[in-house]
Amino acid sequence: MIDHIHRQHPQVPVILDSKRGDIGSTAEQYAIEAFERYKADAVTVNPYMGFDSIEPYLKYADKGVIVLCRTSNPGGSDLQFLEVNEENNVAKEQLYQRVARLAANRWNKTGQLGLVVGATFPDEIAKVREIVGEMPLLIPGIGAQGGDIPSTVKAGTVQGSPGTGMIINSSRAILYASQDSKFANAARQVAIATRDALRAAKA
Amino acid sequence: MIDHIHRQHPQVPVILDSKRGDIGSTAEQYAIEAFERYKADAVTVNPYMGFDSIEPYLKYADKGVIVLCRTSNPGGSDLQFLEVNEENNVAKEQLYQRVARLAANRWNKTGQLGLVVGATFPDEIAKVREIVGEMPLLIPGIGAQGGDIPSTVKAGTVQGSPGTGMIINSSRAILYASQDSKFANAARQVAIATRDALRAAKA
Repeated sequence: MIDHIHRQHPQVPVILDSKRGDIGSTAEQYAIEAFERYKADAVTVNPYMGFDSIEPYLKYADKGVIVLCRTSNPGGSDLQFLEVNEENNVAKEQLYQRVARLAANRWNKTGQLGLVVGATFPDEIAKVREIVGEMPLLIPGIGAQGGDIPSTVKAGTVQGSPGTGMIINSSRAILYASQDSKFANAARQVAIATRDALRAAKA
Repeated sequence: MIDHIHRQHPQVPVILDSKRGDIGSTAEQYAIEAFERYKADAVTVNPYMGFDSIEPYLKYADKGVIVLCRTSNPGGSDLQFLEVNEENNVAKEQLYQRVARLAANRWNKTGQLGLVVGATFPDEIAKVREIVGEMPLLIPGIGAQGGDIPSTVKAGTVQGSPGTGMIINSSRAILYASQDSKFANAARQVAIATRDALRAAKA
């Protein structure tokens, strides 16, 4: 399927949302799977095991590596909202903010990193944007999960560069737009409506 | 291969160390893969996305679900050693300790949970044991990573029940015991030596 997208729509990047997180030697193999076998353009990764679980993906210089930061699932706050103490002149903040800071200040040596921040929390998108500067944010949650498009776009905007630094995706709302035999057309309609709403919000 | 182990050695549990962590609907599918397709006896999971990324596995009542807590890879401390503030009468502690506490006090409603705690840190195994009582600990790191067997066993022992509550594994040291054609025998020798050292430490 990724091959089909690349052939038919070469301008569309494919992000493999596999959320892997494992020791370096295993991460190397996952990187081979994602980038050589599937030929994805970017992957999502889990930060719980730290930088050596992320580093092997960065050897693929033209690929993106998008770190889970603030996820919009019901249990997303269980760890991500824990308050982490001050350290090395960084004030106390929530764990997802510290992950954003680690990614921006320590892990992003090659400029390939991005962060996942759910659209259901525009205030938190704004906090992450403040920490990470121009780093791209992958923002799920505007479809099935009901995130508001205008406030999402406003919160994620890079100061001075409107329309950059955000990949806002809708998956289930498009994939499952209809259960009947006209599902392809229904999906197309939802995709177009979503695109138009995003364009309007950007303006 | 799992099928082969179950047929030939039905007393040996198979743990799928897949370290998955995803939203509930995706975790449901991963649970089907691990327990119905592969027929593993337990899986490892990543806690960063919280309880709903763990809960779907618990529907399989006879299976184990082992949560990453303190991992022994070089970047393991990046997040797991962050100091988390006091909350609900719990004193400040490091993130891996808070994960142990969440797992033991809030997530383990069915008694199916365990925790991954690396053998390279006996003091931290002891801290986790103090938090979680009798919960089983999966302890990697005594082989290729050089964790000390006697101090690991001592730190992980459940008070009053020596020899319970620990699954201590060695993977690479056994799998890659030799590169030549006698690799099977070399692996067997390392496995036997490891078993004997564990038995001696338990006594």
